[in-house]
Amino acid sequence: MKKQIITISREFGSGGHLVGKVLAEKMDVPYYDKSILDRIAEEKGYSVEMMEEDEKRAKNSFLYSLTTAFGSAGTGPDYISINEKFFLAQFDYIRRIAKEGSCVIVGRCADYVLREMPFVTNVFIYADKQQKFKRIVNEYGLSREDAEKGLRDVDKARANYYKYHTGQEWGRPENYHLCINSSNISLGGCTDIIMKYQEIKTK
Amino acid sequence: MKKQIITISREFGSGGHLVGKVLAEKMDVPYYDKSILDRIAEEKGYSVEMMEEDEKRAKNSFLYSLTTAFGSAGTGPDYISINEKFFLAQFDYIRRIAKEGSCVIVGRCADYVLREMPFVTNVFIYADKQQKFKRIVNEYGLSREDAEKGLRDVDKARANYYKYHTGQEWGRPENYHLCINSSNISLGGCTDIIMKYQEIKTK
Repeated sequence: MKKQIITISREFGSGGHLVGKVLAEKMDVPYYDKSILDRIAEEKGYSVEMMEEDEKRAKNSFLYSLTTAFGSAGTGPDYISINEKFFLAQFDYIRRIAKEGSCVIVGRCADYVLREMPFVTNVFIYADKQQKFKRIVNEYGLSREDAEKGLRDVDKARANYYKYHTGQEWGRPENYHLCINSSNISLGGCTDIIMKYQEIKTK
Repeated sequence: MKKQIITISREFGSGGHLVGKVLAEKMDVPYYDKSILDRIAEEKGYSVEMMEEDEKRAKNSFLYSLTTAFGSAGTGPDYISINEKFFLAQFDYIRRIAKEGSCVIVGRCADYVLREMPFVTNVFIYADKQQKFKRIVNEYGLSREDAEKGLRDVDKARANYYKYHTGQEWGRPENYHLCINSSNISLGGCTDIIMKYQEIKTK
């Protein structure tokens, strides 16, 4: 098999995370998501908790919104710079695993980080609001209230994070090779469509 | 075969128009695009030239931009109302052909018109700018200057037209079931991916 790297960006509740996992299994390649953070943490001597706490703080801060709104990265106070440092460490790490061989990477702006590499396919998984709500309640086990809150906040945070680190609009087709609405098809169906795309691209 | 209707929205130069034609051939179902206008014209006694002229005028008018910007349809002067009347006639016509049986429809806000029907799949075909430029020059036969102009203006007009008639943002994933970047795959490849989606959806 030629080297194939699939990055998955996904709306909260779309099932995109599981699509990534199942896809990696079907393709028989490594799968990465937040565990990337863990491995960087190990290597760089950061604790995962410290990085996650910092990321949360940055995302919720006024200065984060401000630098996001004006598109300037790395000019904020210390905790923004720390966040930026983490991102750059992740950036390096994602490029390193992309060199190692085929894999599936969910989230972490991997689509942007690897955008120039011809063997990379960037996929966006999304769904209708009602479908996402149903999945969040029935499969993720959240209360209806938390599901509503999640639908309101999670993707907004992802879009901010993406904008802050890449300067691009999260979820716009131009950042991806394929965008799939998972509402009317199973998650296995989503993986089959991605594999069909790969089959055609690598033929 | 269960009834299947595919609507194709496409960026200028992405090859989406041809994807629609080839798809209709492969599925062995009728294909509709601007010819819809002709059939309405015949039935309603409008001349095609009159409708096209009116549409162009509306698209280029300041009032058209204004009503687009403020999202209010049908409140402009007479020629806007005429355009609206044409749209509603098209709207009726698209719904009628959707009742008749399976088909492929390119453009004309068909995705929006048929959005509530479960047997409808809305597809958006787009491509990287460089690829679109190449296709416009090499396959559509436009000069480099006209290609640049087309890339600047055509999709803007489509987005305005879509916004005016539907109140929605053209080219945003939430309006479609599947968005395919045609840059790295052949147009036949695009049709194969759409057919794969249909196979999974109707299984």
